[in-house]
Amino acid sequence: DGQVGSMGAIEVAQTLAENNVRLRHPLEVILFQNEEGGTVGSTALGRGLTDKDLSVVTNSKKTIREGIQFIGGDANKLAANVRKKGDLAGYVELHIEQGGLLHQENINIGVVEGIVGVNWWEVTIDGFANHAGTTPMNQRKDALLAAAKYIDAVNRIVTSIPGRQVGTVGKIQAFPGAFNIVPGKVATSLGLRDLDAAKVEMLYEKIQAEVHQIEAATGTKFTFQKVTSSLPAPTDARFRRAIDDAAKQLGFTTKTLPSGAGHDAQEIAHLCPIGMIFIPSRDGISHSPREFSTPGDITNGANVLLHTLLKLDAMNL
Amino acid sequence: DGQVGSMGAIEVAQTLAENNVRLRHPLEVILFQNEEGGTVGSTALGRGLTDKDLSVVTNSKKTIREGIQFIGGDANKLAANVRKKGDLAGYVELHIEQGGLLHQENINIGVVEGIVGVNWWEVTIDGFANHAGTTPMNQRKDALLAAAKYIDAVNRIVTSIPGRQVGTVGKIQAFPGAFNIVPGKVATSLGLRDLDAAKVEMLYEKIQAEVHQIEAATGTKFTFQKVTSSLPAPTDARFRRAIDDAAKQLGFTTKTLPSGAGHDAQEIAHLCPIGMIFIPSRDGISHSPREFSTPGDITNGANVLLHTLLKLDAMNL
Repeated sequence: DGQVGSMGAIEVAQTLAENNVRLRHPLEVILFQNEEGGTVGSTALGRGLTDKDLSVVTNSKKTIREGIQFIGGDANKLAANVRKKGDLAGYVELHIEQGGLLHQENINIGVVEGIVGVNWWEVTIDGFANHAGTTPMNQRKDALLAAAKYIDAVNRIVTSIPGRQVGTVGKIQAFPGAFNIVPGKVATSLGLRDLDAAKVEMLYEKIQAEVHQIEAATGTKFTFQKVTSSLPAPTDARFRRAIDDAAKQLGFTTKTLPSGAGHDAQEIAHLCPIGMIFIPSRDGISHSPREFSTPGDITNGANVLLHTLLKLDAMNL
Repeated sequence: DGQVGSMGAIEVAQTLAENNVRLRHPLEVILFQNEEGGTVGSTALGRGLTDKDLSVVTNSKKTIREGIQFIGGDANKLAANVRKKGDLAGYVELHIEQGGLLHQENINIGVVEGIVGVNWWEVTIDGFANHAGTTPMNQRKDALLAAAKYIDAVNRIVTSIPGRQVGTVGKIQAFPGAFNIVPGKVATSLGLRDLDAAKVEMLYEKIQAEVHQIEAATGTKFTFQKVTSSLPAPTDARFRRAIDDAAKQLGFTTKTLPSGAGHDAQEIAHLCPIGMIFIPSRDGISHSPREFSTPGDITNGANVLLHTLLKLDAMNL
């Protein structure tokens, strides 16, 4: 999904060069490595990679450090290239939406409000495993029944207030996991995302309150262990305005929306003001062979990026 | 758990022999192989094993046929030893309860009403996998949310009517099963047991009706595939009376209860009237290293078995 942004940015730089347009601000085009797999590339530029980050073993069986060397790079030179706050006047990223809002509403350009914070917990539920034939219903401590009530509660709580927050239980395993045995343990998960960290905190507290009721009703015990937590990264109001104006001048319809997925922009937001431009994803499908954006929408995105840069260049950023 | 019955039956036969008691009916003591693993032994005596049954590969990597040969038997002689209806006047089995009713209520002897029918289904739920960050809550077809509502419904429906029926969802797996992805598919299960096959059918129909509502509410599709179905095996009223009378004459408290677990008696029920005697299981724990019955309870069970046989022998069965 990152190819649209790369192609668009190169096209914009080439167009500026071909037309001998010299911007007031120096323009850099950057392609971060493997944006689908995370923000390692942009973290290297923004906050810098630690020894621990470089020692992570990837699917290739190589560490990040070995992988950089394998493709001809030098991990020892990374630290010297970290940018500092003030080094950059601004950052704009073009991307496919990955969700279905623009496609559904037939809108050309999305003006990203910000990138949501991502919060993941591993959830363990302890009950008591017993014979499914001989253990009466009222004497069970069924960890999977507790999990079911929890999953339903997460959905109910997340959808009980207006807004674009999402809550997902994506993983589950019951132990021992047999027809014949009341599950004694369940390993499951929780994911919460929103542009507003306080709203995520409030949802988590509501889920905890309901979990206490489920524990009491089912004779089970829940444990939540946080495994990922990123803060929301809001975009800059001047950047949003520039994108919206550029799009409308080109005759495109626009919609302001959050980004539910993570992006390199969220790392660069530590250094400078950021903006993001979305184009439609057909049926909102992403990270799938069925991911698709039309050539026309891709062209629109590149044009909006070009005119957004011209507008931003005219400002005193 | 089958050892108590074997020890008790041998003790009874030895006691009769030592006291020169000759019963009117010939008495046979039989130890069926691996009763914990199923009813292969009693099926061999009752309905007979098919070629398919004998070709099942067990945990030993041997087929049942090879296993019989390995321990010095001859599978070819099994067919000649199948009993027919009328060959046996009656069958009595002594067993630990495996559930916790007798232990909880501090009762000495359980008079088994019958062995419940066991019904298992593999359940598949198809939704649509999508990005957990970019897919709004109201546009999801979350197979795990549907599974949660189903698991809760099974529990609610099974406990909504009086009786000792049990319903269990013991297995679950979500696909692809990641923090980051709304589950597109779930594989789970259903188990229903009761002494009354019509009640099981009624519960299954109620569950199906609720499943249709869940499908509509969540945009998912459920599939139920039956993998096991055994009919309930009621015990004979004369046998229940004999057990209860024998226990009370020995000064024991009794309780009439169903057997939620399967037993060899359910296979022999195809041939002749059956009876079953239960003794308490501490905390109702079974198929576990923590399974325990006291020596006193085991002795009580053997004594009740002896006096039950004397009472039955006096009848014209």
